[in-house]
Amino acid sequence: MHILVTNDDGVQAPGLLALAQAMREIATVTVFAPDRNWSASGHVKTLERPLRIGETMLADGSQAFMSDGAPSDCVALPLLGFLENKVDLVVSGINPFSNIGHDVTYSGTVTAAMEAVIAGVPGIAFSLASQDKPASVPADYGPAAQVAKVIAQKVLEKGLSEGVVLNVNVPYLDVESMKGILITRQGLRVYRDALDRRVDPRGRPYYWIGGDAPTGVNEEGTDVGALLAGYVSITPLQLDLTHYRVMDALKNWEWSL
Amino acid sequence: MHILVTNDDGVQAPGLLALAQAMREIATVTVFAPDRNWSASGHVKTLERPLRIGETMLADGSQAFMSDGAPSDCVALPLLGFLENKVDLVVSGINPFSNIGHDVTYSGTVTAAMEAVIAGVPGIAFSLASQDKPASVPADYGPAAQVAKVIAQKVLEKGLSEGVVLNVNVPYLDVESMKGILITRQGLRVYRDALDRRVDPRGRPYYWIGGDAPTGVNEEGTDVGALLAGYVSITPLQLDLTHYRVMDALKNWEWSL
Repeated sequence: MHILVTNDDGVQAPGLLALAQAMREIATVTVFAPDRNWSASGHVKTLERPLRIGETMLADGSQAFMSDGAPSDCVALPLLGFLENKVDLVVSGINPFSNIGHDVTYSGTVTAAMEAVIAGVPGIAFSLASQDKPASVPADYGPAAQVAKVIAQKVLEKGLSEGVVLNVNVPYLDVESMKGILITRQGLRVYRDALDRRVDPRGRPYYWIGGDAPTGVNEEGTDVGALLAGYVSITPLQLDLTHYRVMDALKNWEWSL
Repeated sequence: MHILVTNDDGVQAPGLLALAQAMREIATVTVFAPDRNWSASGHVKTLERPLRIGETMLADGSQAFMSDGAPSDCVALPLLGFLENKVDLVVSGINPFSNIGHDVTYSGTVTAAMEAVIAGVPGIAFSLASQDKPASVPADYGPAAQVAKVIAQKVLEKGLSEGVVLNVNVPYLDVESMKGILITRQGLRVYRDALDRRVDPRGRPYYWIGGDAPTGVNEEGTDVGALLAGYVSITPLQLDLTHYRVMDALKNWEWSL
């Protein structure tokens, strides 16, 4: 089996190394990641400019490819033919922060996995809720990498239906302290963004999107609820965004041009 | 009523002007758009750097705001408090090319409307299938702007359920030649990307994501099918990406850490 490992935090991010090492225990691994951080980049396909592909080394001395494209490009380039060998699974992460609720539409980690699924290859996004740890200590990706290995192995064994992306969020706990794995639905994020207007040294205003960190609605059965309760959350996502319930209501409106 | 008009092609794009003019016939309008083209930018929220807001003029002499942020930022900034007046509707476009099938996950036009809906304001994305016209003539946004006016007016009158984004695609036809309006589901795009490897003047390789333009599966009831048949397509989209059908299957897998 051949696993492509990517992320949105850049090829030198510690979460990528942990994920690559875990995947290497169950398959042949190719690492192909952005040469810089693309967090909160959304689903980007670079069509307006050509892309470079370079070789680099991870901190453990293993080979990796990097590109000046976005996370989705780092999935498209190898799958479109840069890699000769067929890819059986694309894993993305380990993102240092959880990707829950509406985060999934912004997350480069998740959209990299979506790009794989659009190309017909199963994709899994892994995120670690390390926002829950003290900021002064570096994140330990070890437990999340172990969880990633278990889930990737299961997906390779059972296969995934076409068009399904798995969005995995891991609580910031030792594996022994995790309560288990829950299959969840996407929960509700509560964004608490606020506009922070400041004035630069030359008297001109500039604006930060500031405010407080987002919270979530703690509901059973959701990604938010599972994480808060100490479970690993696996949410199957689809690329069909149609709001089927609302379709019928809209059909009853009188439409004329 | 107060409508915020934005896009992902930049404040000077002709599609934005046409949309702003059409909206001004039914409401008070504020234009707030990116200062440059962000096509295929995905859902981006700029948190790592501060943003500037400038004033500019559209080609008809009307006032507009612009920012160095992404399309979603151009929705977030005004809704977070840069504008004092409440916004009743956010419209995004008119994108020069259709946004159908999986395009919606990449499209800055659509994600700007999503950003509005996340902030609790109805959002509509408008796209024109002008890829169907000869490349040598400039696109005429007039008919699409007229359609946008009809749809925006209906949404202001009837309201939209919470969490619903309308993705509107308009065929490149005179209004009289359009067959009408259809409520559709998201169809299937067929991407025909191919890797195009070239060598620069210094002998180093670089890569274009090239290939043929995407096609779509022409199926009745979908955005793809409606456009091809000469209808305006309105697809209600949701922000809950959960693949509910697959959830149960995954629950039956044996999961253990």
